[in-house]
Amino acid sequence: MANYPAVEDIRKIGILGGGTIGASWSAWFLARGYDVTAWDPGEGAEAKLRAFVDNAWPQLTELGLSAGADKARLTFVATPEEAVAGADFIQESAPERLDIKRELYARVDGVLGPDAIFASSTSGLVMSEMQQGLKSAPRMVIGHPFNPPHLIPLVEVVAGKETDPAAADWAMDFYRHVGKHPIRLKKELKGHLANRLQAALWREALLAVKEDIASIEDIDAAMAQGPGLRLALMGPHMIFNLAGGKGGMAHFYDHIGPAMEAWWETMQETPKLDAELRAALIKGVEEEAAGRSIDQLEAERDGKLIALLKMLQEKG
Amino acid sequence: MANYPAVEDIRKIGILGGGTIGASWSAWFLARGYDVTAWDPGEGAEAKLRAFVDNAWPQLTELGLSAGADKARLTFVATPEEAVAGADFIQESAPERLDIKRELYARVDGVLGPDAIFASSTSGLVMSEMQQGLKSAPRMVIGHPFNPPHLIPLVEVVAGKETDPAAADWAMDFYRHVGKHPIRLKKELKGHLANRLQAALWREALLAVKEDIASIEDIDAAMAQGPGLRLALMGPHMIFNLAGGKGGMAHFYDHIGPAMEAWWETMQETPKLDAELRAALIKGVEEEAAGRSIDQLEAERDGKLIALLKMLQEKG
Repeated sequence: MANYPAVEDIRKIGILGGGTIGASWSAWFLARGYDVTAWDPGEGAEAKLRAFVDNAWPQLTELGLSAGADKARLTFVATPEEAVAGADFIQESAPERLDIKRELYARVDGVLGPDAIFASSTSGLVMSEMQQGLKSAPRMVIGHPFNPPHLIPLVEVVAGKETDPAAADWAMDFYRHVGKHPIRLKKELKGHLANRLQAALWREALLAVKEDIASIEDIDAAMAQGPGLRLALMGPHMIFNLAGGKGGMAHFYDHIGPAMEAWWETMQETPKLDAELRAALIKGVEEEAAGRSIDQLEAERDGKLIALLKMLQEKG
Repeated sequence: MANYPAVEDIRKIGILGGGTIGASWSAWFLARGYDVTAWDPGEGAEAKLRAFVDNAWPQLTELGLSAGADKARLTFVATPEEAVAGADFIQESAPERLDIKRELYARVDGVLGPDAIFASSTSGLVMSEMQQGLKSAPRMVIGHPFNPPHLIPLVEVVAGKETDPAAADWAMDFYRHVGKHPIRLKKELKGHLANRLQAALWREALLAVKEDIASIEDIDAAMAQGPGLRLALMGPHMIFNLAGGKGGMAHFYDHIGPAMEAWWETMQETPKLDAELRAALIKGVEEEAAGRSIDQLEAERDGKLIALLKMLQEKG
């Protein structure tokens, strides 16, 4: 059984994969005052990673840097073994292919410190498929972030069949310690949980597109100008608990439940992602963008997101 | 054909039904500087309505009052005919029963001004069922708000079979003019649109409860600490457009679409709202509340919601 260190004693983070997710993780850990050692085999990967961190740094500064936070504490190395050697915690964000992940895991298995925890950012794979036959398997967990990890607090922690439950507990503590909001899934599940919730929402939104219930701009507003505003503040169950007034969830369940069941009866279809729907979506978001470029829209989203996160920090 | 007035010329709002929704609408229209004449047959209805407006007024003041806004411009009357007579626009929020609505509509049909628009807040009924046989039918539309209407911008506008499309257009203009974010549904639909999107999300969240994927607190965090943060800023399609990077929606569709389809295949179940699930939800939200009362949680939600709305006002 490993002897996991206290989360306060963690100093050095290893990053495997420096694409959008890995780079965003790197920026987050640097902002929290850690030494970060990153590896990515792609061409020009180091420059891209450093550019990402440079871009993210003003945002992270606005949200508040930890003592000692310094972009210069990022080291880029030539092999995954170097990134993992001596690291207290590893965040892996390699491409989403089982063969690539398994090959990478096998390479670092012998180098991983005996008490170090290894977390995978995978959104599409589960740990039981990836950890088989590895010495480090008990210390391997899913730590699935939500894009971009340097801004969104959620991390989904899931153990594989061979994962030591104490390692998953440790990962929960560590993510909490570094300022993320980890949740613990008790079972492995395709897509984990948050993406399934998003997928459920999108399925119904796409049916509205297919059946021409409203323009895509209006379907988007149906969330963002309505229920979406509350979903940034509280989860769906707590919102419905308050929708029940003084009677809380019990009142809501008894009074709104039957309406929900009636709606669900008419919500049994799953759209096919065909060329027609593709064209409708592309046209719809273009109309909604009304001339704003992707860059402008991204700046708008991130500016509002940072203001929202600051507000939530202040209001506790 | 009616000769609809310019939205700027509207002066007097009639409110039918002064429960939570009608009272919240009253507060909104008062804050926007209108004369409001309200009717509700319930015992103590006037006192409750005025108390609601008093409570909401500091929130509305924080968000900004229009010129001339004054709580004293609320008049409470003894009959629906008095509330409707002379009103330029009527917002009806009577109980959600077809017989009650139809009886009420029949009573006011002869009093409604020849150019006045009559909007119903109904969430569960559709206009075609309610407007049949009425002289005013062409000027009757759904104007479904999202709770609480004095804070949440969304209003879903839907025409019934007998509604003049120009009346629905006018309602869109008027709601926009008074600072709401109206959307236009092209078809009548059980639950309209926003509630169906919420129901789709809740269905999947409930399956996670049933299958014990995570605690209710963690399921709530899976939205509120993750995708929910972005859904307050942009709708699901625009979010996915940006998730596609420079390639936008086309890239997202081609690359993430197949994963979505795989998840949907495993998301075909609808939970039964039985006693066991009810008990699990009540227990789960109680644990999540961690001692906070409904009043405290409401104050927390509303405080954050107002801060969020102000931030979105400022950021445009």
